Amino acid sequence: MKLGSLPQGRDGRLIVVSDDLAWYADADHIVPTMQGLLDDWDRHYPQLEALSIELAHGAIPRKRFHEREACAPLPRAFQWVDGSAYVNHVELVRKARGAELPASFWSDPLMYQGGSDDLRGAREPVLLADEDWGCDFEAEIVVVTGDVPQGISPAAALKHVRLIGLVNDVSLRNLIPGELAKGFGFVQSKPASHFSPVFVTPDAMGDAWAGGKLLRTLTVDLNGAPFGRIEAGEECTFDFGVLIAHLAKTRRIGAGTIIGSGTVSNRDPDGSPGRPVAEGGRGYSCIAEQRMVETIATGAPATPFLKWGDSVRIEVRDGKGKSIFGAIEQSVIQP
Amino acid sequence: MKLGSLPQGRDGRLIVVSDDLAWYADADHIVPTMQGLLDDWDRHYPQLEALSIELAHGAIPRKRFHEREACAPLPRAFQWVDGSAYVNHVELVRKARGAELPASFWSDPLMYQGGSDDLRGAREPVLLADEDWGCDFEAEIVVVTGDVPQGISPAAALKHVRLIGLVNDVSLRNLIPGELAKGFGFVQSKPASHFSPVFVTPDAMGDAWAGGKLLRTLTVDLNGAPFGRIEAGEECTFDFGVLIAHLAKTRRIGAGTIIGSGTVSNRDPDGSPGRPVAEGGRGYSCIAEQRMVETIATGAPATPFLKWGDSVRIEVRDGKGKSIFGAIEQSVIQP
Repeated sequence: MKLGSLPQGRDGRLIVVSDDLAWYADADHIVPTMQGLLDDWDRHYPQLEALSIELAHGAIPRKRFHEREACAPLPRAFQWVDGSAYVNHVELVRKARGAELPASFWSDPLMYQGGSDDLRGAREPVLLADEDWGCDFEAEIVVVTGDVPQGISPAAALKHVRLIGLVNDVSLRNLIPGELAKGFGFVQSKPASHFSPVFVTPDAMGDAWAGGKLLRTLTVDLNGAPFGRIEAGEECTFDFGVLIAHLAKTRRIGAGTIIGSGTVSNRDPDGSPGRPVAEGGRGYSCIAEQRMVETIATGAPATPFLKWGDSVRIEVRDGKGKSIFGAIEQSVIQP
Repeated sequence: MKLGSLPQGRDGRLIVVSDDLAWYADADHIVPTMQGLLDDWDRHYPQLEALSIELAHGAIPRKRFHEREACAPLPRAFQWVDGSAYVNHVELVRKARGAELPASFWSDPLMYQGGSDDLRGAREPVLLADEDWGCDFEAEIVVVTGDVPQGISPAAALKHVRLIGLVNDVSLRNLIPGELAKGFGFVQSKPASHFSPVFVTPDAMGDAWAGGKLLRTLTVDLNGAPFGRIEAGEECTFDFGVLIAHLAKTRRIGAGTIIGSGTVSNRDPDGSPGRPVAEGGRGYSCIAEQRMVETIATGAPATPFLKWGDSVRIEVRDGKGKSIFGAIEQSVIQP
């Protein structure tokens, strides 16, 4: 089942979307909001599933679904944390500044707590007040959990994944070094994140989802040109079960928690840091990685960060070439 | 006006509490939850204020308020961030490990993003799975904001403070060094926080609130003995206007955001790190500070972190000795 939200109040109103993303049916008579659904999943799921089947069969009135009209599936959430499933990304960041990757990073996930009071839609512009902040996109996979008990195992944690989607975890790169040097993580350097038009239940993912990993290509375009064609199922060191269990080590997790994979990243098949798509490589899911590879190769970055007017597109297609979550497609503007 | 929540569903139900914390009136017929109030403050506030006056005059049916029956005023929130208004605390932490305090820490607040999916009540026990995690309390002041636009000034930010309260920002000290060394801030080392039985509007604080600071003594007892008698209005380097403006530098802030002051901390009047209350000093708002002072003095900490069965009490009294927010009073138990 595919679920989304249309703008209404602060939390949107819930809709069920057809598998091909062409149609939707109102679902707010079953439960008004996505958070309401997540709060009481077992009660509402069967009715929504029935609605989804009726929508697929054309047995009920249906309306045209336009990705541009959707807000974030969860327009605000009680928790948003972001992990580091793709350690290649972390290793590249460190290599570019001459720092070794601690061996523990291959077994102990990096994770940070993000702001979740203002989660934005896939077509809303990135509001950038100052181009000198070094605005970057980060294309990632996310899951949304139900309630998770403290101390859960990674295998058991996977059973609490309710929904899967995409995020553009917007980052202000030039604010990060100063902020991380203070030692308490990101605050100003992580503005609002943007989410895919729909989130999808694991049972509707088919063979694109297994073992807590997305087994498809993450497609990233910058200003209309291919920028990343990364295999999300490869070099994914920590599946989502591990990330959820990491978060739940010392406390329970509330329903509607969003957990991100961190920037999706592949090495080049020859073992070196990735090459740009234009040079036959898989490219990158953020500008910073391309700049790091440039820095490692030539001593200095060449690709600029995002400027006003730039656009980014993030999408994942299924085996038949159909968009699974819809596309995040947005421009950067001055507020 | 004093506001609280009684347990109901995931978000509690809103009540108005009398100034002396002895009585309450149901307020959920005006707006069901605290978050609902914060989402639409200007609409609901006049009715709640009228209810509060009727409660004070005995003009409506009233019920006995028992602090032990209240849940957190906001049982879950869309954002919880914690600042470092009391730089003495940060300086002590660093001094104990032989590190200098960067000069910028006196002008640029430290702040971290916390988990807000599970905020707990003042009398709920601290659930500690493993005593070796080094469990500590941190007594702090919090404010709850309305919507705050991006780029606001500190002075203008203060006008967006809707409510004031207390928090015990529970910390797992022995997990902190490893987690902070990874560079992304706290995740596992900050379990659920506990909040005072009521939150109070600024206009009901009288002369206890001015310039974005609480001008009263924060009283902390450990196992029934005085542990801290810290003046919250002294050595408060960053008022809440500065903290809110810091958070809002790169993005807007959603209604219901909770912002903490960081551990309330005073130097000794002679300029040295504080002395314990038993030695005539003002004491501390967390065990770690006492351990740091012991480490600076003798080379090693002497006071242990919290064990199962220990209890902590955090309270602030007004000029007449009456509790302003009610008391956080809880024991540490094995889940």
